[in-house]
Amino acid sequence: MHRTKVRVVEDALDANNTIARANRDDFDRHGVRVVNLMSAPGAGKTTLLEQVLPELQRVGVLEGDVQGSFDADRLSVLHIPVTQINTDPGFGGECHLDANMVRSAIPELPLADIDLLVVENVGNLVCPAEFRVGEDVRAMVCSVTEGEDKPLKYPLMFRTCELVVVNKVDLVPHLDFDLDRFLSGLQQVNPGVEHLLVSAKTGAGVDAFRAWLERVASREAAPA
Amino acid sequence: MHRTKVRVVEDALDANNTIARANRDDFDRHGVRVVNLMSAPGAGKTTLLEQVLPELQRVGVLEGDVQGSFDADRLSVLHIPVTQINTDPGFGGECHLDANMVRSAIPELPLADIDLLVVENVGNLVCPAEFRVGEDVRAMVCSVTEGEDKPLKYPLMFRTCELVVVNKVDLVPHLDFDLDRFLSGLQQVNPGVEHLLVSAKTGAGVDAFRAWLERVASREAAPA
Repeated sequence: MHRTKVRVVEDALDANNTIARANRDDFDRHGVRVVNLMSAPGAGKTTLLEQVLPELQRVGVLEGDVQGSFDADRLSVLHIPVTQINTDPGFGGECHLDANMVRSAIPELPLADIDLLVVENVGNLVCPAEFRVGEDVRAMVCSVTEGEDKPLKYPLMFRTCELVVVNKVDLVPHLDFDLDRFLSGLQQVNPGVEHLLVSAKTGAGVDAFRAWLERVASREAAPA
Repeated sequence: MHRTKVRVVEDALDANNTIARANRDDFDRHGVRVVNLMSAPGAGKTTLLEQVLPELQRVGVLEGDVQGSFDADRLSVLHIPVTQINTDPGFGGECHLDANMVRSAIPELPLADIDLLVVENVGNLVCPAEFRVGEDVRAMVCSVTEGEDKPLKYPLMFRTCELVVVNKVDLVPHLDFDLDRFLSGLQQVNPGVEHLLVSAKTGAGVDAFRAWLERVASREAAPA
């Protein structure tokens, strides 16, 4: 019984990984580097992208949401190509993007016109970390308002990323957020991982995130 | 093919609902009322419980987390019975509690000694809304730092609750949060739902949440 269950789970993961590799092959063939951008709901992924995308060249966005196109609409006014995936055909809505959902969107992506694709995942700190979608690198945004315990409470998410963007640092004076404890927890689950302190609202640190994306696009950042 | 797939999904939901009803029967037999408390990660569920639980009588907590017992440890110092469920035996960690996980914890719960059980779900705005665990009522906490678009982006979660607690209102002066747009979106997905404006940090509005829990315990609040 137990052995059968384990096999089923492995099959599900393998199917996703197989499709993720096919996606990555397609992206590679077009010379497109892909960032899987993850976070909890409301951590500020879209606001951060609004800040950095206008000054980036040849960049596109794939938006994952349960319903609607709120974030895609916010980004499309920046005159960059944005493609929306809604996960609600799943029962009640899927809480993450998987490789097959991204695969279904590939025909809509202008791969010949971009060097960098940012996949903005569904807001969730658990399942998105379990499903590769064909990305080269993974980045996550964590807001200081979420509390310093998050790396230890959601270790897979923090462990699986090449970059952790600590957002909304302008709010730190109004919070009890303990940055040292946050960074110590992060170090514990993902030793040596790069992190940036930013405020998408004030613009503090945003240049460093833009520079990181440029390094990914130019293939200077380490692939996953 | 398509029909078979639909059947599998219905079976999965039915199995959960069957177990949820069995849980509810057990809770009813002991005269225990159950609140399923949900939110995104870091919205402040535990801090809010720290504020309200010490003055409540005959209350227990069931803590759901992917890993660890950080929240359970915070609550257990309040000298109330706390039981921890970790969801990490699932592959990579389950992003929600389901009825069967709660069922497995029932033998550990002091049902004879409590009138109210608060189930603190895994931080996630998608899947927890899809799985009943045997609760009488559902409440969710949404932090103003998450942005006013959340009811329309995660409609099932907001639609499925009897109470929406808007937390961290002390931070509103430092944010661009538009409360009117939030409440208008909430009204759109769940017309007439009760909401409270609170700050678990300053204590503002916390009495109203405590009073709501007391009404649930005394069977004055409408069951789900």
